[in-house]
Amino acid sequence: MTTRLIIDTDTAGDDCFSLLLGLLHPKAKLEAVTICNGNVDFDQQVENALHTIEVTGRGGEVPVYLGSARPLMGRWQAASFHGSNGMSERQFEPAKQRPESKHAIDAIIDLVMANPGEISIIAQAPLTNIALAFLKEPKIAKALKHLWIMGGTDHAFGNITPMAEFNFFVDPEAAKIVLGAGFNITLSTWTLTLKSGSFDAATVDAIEKLDTPLSRFYMQVTETPRRVAFERYGETISTHPDSLTCAMAIDESLILESAAVVVDVEVGGDLSRGHSSVYPARLVERWPDRDANARIVRTADTKGFANMMMSVLA
Amino acid sequence: MTTRLIIDTDTAGDDCFSLLLGLLHPKAKLEAVTICNGNVDFDQQVENALHTIEVTGRGGEVPVYLGSARPLMGRWQAASFHGSNGMSERQFEPAKQRPESKHAIDAIIDLVMANPGEISIIAQAPLTNIALAFLKEPKIAKALKHLWIMGGTDHAFGNITPMAEFNFFVDPEAAKIVLGAGFNITLSTWTLTLKSGSFDAATVDAIEKLDTPLSRFYMQVTETPRRVAFERYGETISTHPDSLTCAMAIDESLILESAAVVVDVEVGGDLSRGHSSVYPARLVERWPDRDANARIVRTADTKGFANMMMSVLA
Amino acid sequence: MTTRLIIDTDTAGDDCFSLLLGLLHPKAKLEAVTICNGNVDFDQQVENALHTIEVTGRGGEVPVYLGSARPLMGRWQAASFHGSNGMSERQFEPAKQRPESKHAIDAIIDLVMANPGEISIIAQAPLTNIALAFLKEPKIAKALKHLWIMGGTDHAFGNITPMAEFNFFVDPEAAKIVLGAGFNITLSTWTLTLKSGSFDAATVDAIEKLDTPLSRFYMQVTETPRRVAFERYGETISTHPDSLTCAMAIDESLILESAAVVVDVEVGGDLSRGHSSVYPARLVERWPDRDANARIVRTADTKGFANMMMSVLA
Amino acid sequence: MTTRLIIDTDTAGDDCFSLLLGLLHPKAKLEAVTICNGNVDFDQQVENALHTIEVTGRGGEVPVYLGSARPLMGRWQAASFHGSNGMSERQFEPAKQRPESKHAIDAIIDLVMANPGEISIIAQAPLTNIALAFLKEPKIAKALKHLWIMGGTDHAFGNITPMAEFNFFVDPEAAKIVLGAGFNITLSTWTLTLKSGSFDAATVDAIEKLDTPLSRFYMQVTETPRRVAFERYGETISTHPDSLTCAMAIDESLILESAAVVVDVEVGGDLSRGHSSVYPARLVERWPDRDANARIVRTADTKGFANMMMSVLA
Ligand SMILES: [Ca+2]
Ligand SMILES: [Ca+2]
Ligand SMILES: [Ca+2]
Ligand SMILES: [Ca+2]
Repeated sequence: MTTRLIIDTDTAGDDCFSLLLGLLHPKAKLEAVTICNGNVDFDQQVENALHTIEVTGRGGEVPVYLGSARPLMGRWQAASFHGSNGMSERQFEPAKQRPESKHAIDAIIDLVMANPGEISIIAQAPLTNIALAFLKEPKIAKALKHLWIMGGTDHAFGNITPMAEFNFFVDPEAAKIVLGAGFNITLSTWTLTLKSGSFDAATVDAIEKLDTPLSRFYMQVTETPRRVAFERYGETISTHPDSLTCAMAIDESLILESAAVVVDVEVGGDLSRGHSSVYPARLVERWPDRDANARIVRTADTKGFANMMMSVLA
Repeated sequence: MTTRLIIDTDTAGDDCFSLLLGLLHPKAKLEAVTICNGNVDFDQQVENALHTIEVTGRGGEVPVYLGSARPLMGRWQAASFHGSNGMSERQFEPAKQRPESKHAIDAIIDLVMANPGEISIIAQAPLTNIALAFLKEPKIAKALKHLWIMGGTDHAFGNITPMAEFNFFVDPEAAKIVLGAGFNITLSTWTLTLKSGSFDAATVDAIEKLDTPLSRFYMQVTETPRRVAFERYGETISTHPDSLTCAMAIDESLILESAAVVVDVEVGGDLSRGHSSVYPARLVERWPDRDANARIVRTADTKGFANMMMSVLA
Repeated sequence: MTTRLIIDTDTAGDDCFSLLLGLLHPKAKLEAVTICNGNVDFDQQVENALHTIEVTGRGGEVPVYLGSARPLMGRWQAASFHGSNGMSERQFEPAKQRPESKHAIDAIIDLVMANPGEISIIAQAPLTNIALAFLKEPKIAKALKHLWIMGGTDHAFGNITPMAEFNFFVDPEAAKIVLGAGFNITLSTWTLTLKSGSFDAATVDAIEKLDTPLSRFYMQVTETPRRVAFERYGETISTHPDSLTCAMAIDESLILESAAVVVDVEVGGDLSRGHSSVYPARLVERWPDRDANARIVRTADTKGFANMMMSVLA
Repeated sequence: MTTRLIIDTDTAGDDCFSLLLGLLHPKAKLEAVTICNGNVDFDQQVENALHTIEVTGRGGEVPVYLGSARPLMGRWQAASFHGSNGMSERQFEPAKQRPESKHAIDAIIDLVMANPGEISIIAQAPLTNIALAFLKEPKIAKALKHLWIMGGTDHAFGNITPMAEFNFFVDPEAAKIVLGAGFNITLSTWTLTLKSGSFDAATVDAIEKLDTPLSRFYMQVTETPRRVAFERYGETISTHPDSLTCAMAIDESLILESAAVVVDVEVGGDLSRGHSSVYPARLVERWPDRDANARIVRTADTKGFANMMMSVLA
């Protein structure tokens, strides 16, 4: 069965490989790409997405829509002044395809409402666009087939503060709105990325040896993070939060372990802004029962995920 | 000079009289009404707005657009279960005019962007719709001629909590977004309403004696709040936060005293959620200078306002 | 009638003149001085207090006790690195009198509990010591005759942040504990200081012309703040928050206008930390009734206060 | 080597067994018991502690001091109205020994300062007393040999809210003060209790078969929680957060796995109040390095702990 997809992305690094899966996997049909604030300068993210589509030879076939260039409360600004383009500083010509004029939140609403129960979203950026689409048209919560969210942590420390993962930290209000909206949600956390979504040296070598245009694209885009990881940990690690999320959406059998949980997001506090609180819906008398609002993935099939990635890069 | 207006309203009570001013005053041209969550049940507010337009004999001439039925974070729900319709329980037939299908935030964006520097908004409800319109199209902040906000307090206690006025309390995140967006803002606070926007018994009597259809409409809609005020304070007081704001937008000479200030809104805290912090932009060394982001009205011409209202009800 | 006093002080600037009133006014009997964190380096504050006692010729007669050198949560540190000694940089020899070994909170508890209904405290610093004394011995709340607090604002902007006065901002948790403890409280705010507790050029001139050792002490200690005020506002203003509070405790007829109110302190929030929320105990249906927990002074007799100060400096 | 101990306790349930270890283990010398607000009515906790001392036959030998009957901010009140005495409703005569008149915080300060580097504290209640003792005499942070804290969670859900453990939740401000004070800290979390501090049915049976006065005391005090656990989980589980902490203090070889970490406590937020944030002191570039402020126990020797408990109950 084909998975009809919208990918909402702050395109930089691993966001690209998630797009590749959506664009090239035979069981995926990527129908729209929507750009959200997050990793790097907004306009750069747009170019990164368009370039990635072009690299696959599908330029012009999948529309790219611009979403919100800032999180709801505007308290985070992408560190574009670092000069980073999110592509390991690899320079490229602007793609021939240009973004659509329709706003991303309308693109999401229109596609979802025209195809009730048919469309899934990979939300691999801060959740600003998804929150805004829901606030404009609350019916998308039930009309969307599935919302795959890359974000949050699962009882482990974060990657931007000790208590928060980047996507949830950048727009905690959006994350809280979306998690409370009634979507059919699978949560793919940074904790899962560290456990099941990282490629080791052998896998990266195998990708390099494919020696195809897309495997070279992979090696180029991952160059900086691989070097940083090597400097930090003394070994090659390539982390794939976004593409793992997309891979699981395309093939749910990659999910080895999961649980129905309550997830909520802290928007206040001194230490906790952006923290994802995860707990069982029922815990016998400790606190009032709540309904589970997400399936959280605890273990994924790293080998199967790597195989899927290699099949697309080959 | 004619003031071209959009009124964003949670139509109940005084919201109606602001609409009357916009609909009937010779110097106002009301081009759209947008409905926001707030006072009472959302659908009831829509009917209240349509009915008010019909009462003026202008049914079908000014489009009504539906906005967000909930504040951004969804933490407030209108107490519709109280059974109150926001019109002193006066029942009326649904108006012939029906709402448009275009969303309020698109109506705002389209009208403002098509007429840069021409349109003013009276924001007399929680600021959800204005915030969402800005988040979708940030350019409206500069393209809008003027944003007249009824909300907040000015160094005085609130009307929903000790520290907060209703509109800002219902959606503090929206208020904070809008106040930080770069609009050309005049703030008409609850503190101003108490000082300059309340009619005494003599004024209400004068309105009653007009004995026109609209003066009777006025007496009917204000019946419950007038009775409550009488029970509380032993005298007739009719408070007009929204219509005072609209009146000042139509005739700025009603503003007797104002100041350029910094206004920000508290979204956290134990006591302070929704509080409007108001202070001078420069205070010599105490804290860093900021740019004033609003003109706050400190005194308005109550008599002139009453005269404007009576001219419309006559 | 003589007022038996403890003065809790972060001795710097006007703190000294409050001590002078307590030490020298015929209707005051100062029985203990307790030092609290606040204005400048803690040890410097101790020396400032001892020096002030010595200046009055009463060295060795009133014991000085050391309290908490930090606020409860430790989030504020006195800006001693500015090099300021809080005495307009006037250098002086250490006083002969040395501090007691008993802790300030025990001094407070022992004196109050040994003299139920007899002792009043002038709390003219952050409320750390008072909060700790109460937490150790809650019975002092009822055994103390009266707690005179200099702190907070009264529906006006602050002097350390737009929403907060210094003493409450430095230790908001302590302020909240003390205001909720059940003391018999009079609140003398920064707002009152600006309205009724500031000396103009004529008053300062009159003090200078007294040409006594204590008037010279006054001129020396106030030199820097007077110069700063002149630079800021183009006129001489000498503000006396602490000594006004002490003056009212000695002679309540200086209080011209006051109200029984509810006062609470915000400890969280983005903008509001340390803000004093002030409102009427009963406000007919708006929010639940609470009991008034403080008398707030709205207007004081500036002339009478100046006269009292001059009588002591003469 | 003998461990000289103060046990700070909200005596109810497992608090008693920690006292038994301190009172009876040959390598422990319990020198003071200090009572803190927490589990049940304060006065009941005092009686529970005195009774436990009496049960061991050491009545009158170890002084009991009364600490703070409320947490710093007073936002929690023990649910004594539930009628629970914290001893599985077992009634007992008041012990002959009565509490001392010296306040617990002075008892702690005096004992620690008189014996620098000699005394360890088992803090098995909310940290109010320890925070107050530190605020009164900051030197205890370095003079205390070791502070053993039962509190917080370690990347797992809580037992009073999804994000917080009881002791930290009841007085988060105290917990934050204590963790930032510079003590030599070992943290024994609720997460550790669930992993290594719970007795199974076989262990409880073994204790029952001892059939000594103290084993009967154990069976009586644990009766209610054992029944509740059985009803919830279908098996006998007896959780021992406090006595495990004491056991590790007496014999550190029971600590099988630990780490030097940064621990901080959230005092604000909507979801996170009382949450213990735990993370490595250095994490290469993600956030600024901090110094580790605690050793957190990740695994303890459950069998060894059970053996220690049985040796004392035998
Ligand atoms: Ca991403
Ligand atoms: Ca309104
Ligand atoms: Ca002071
Ligand atoms: Ca305990």
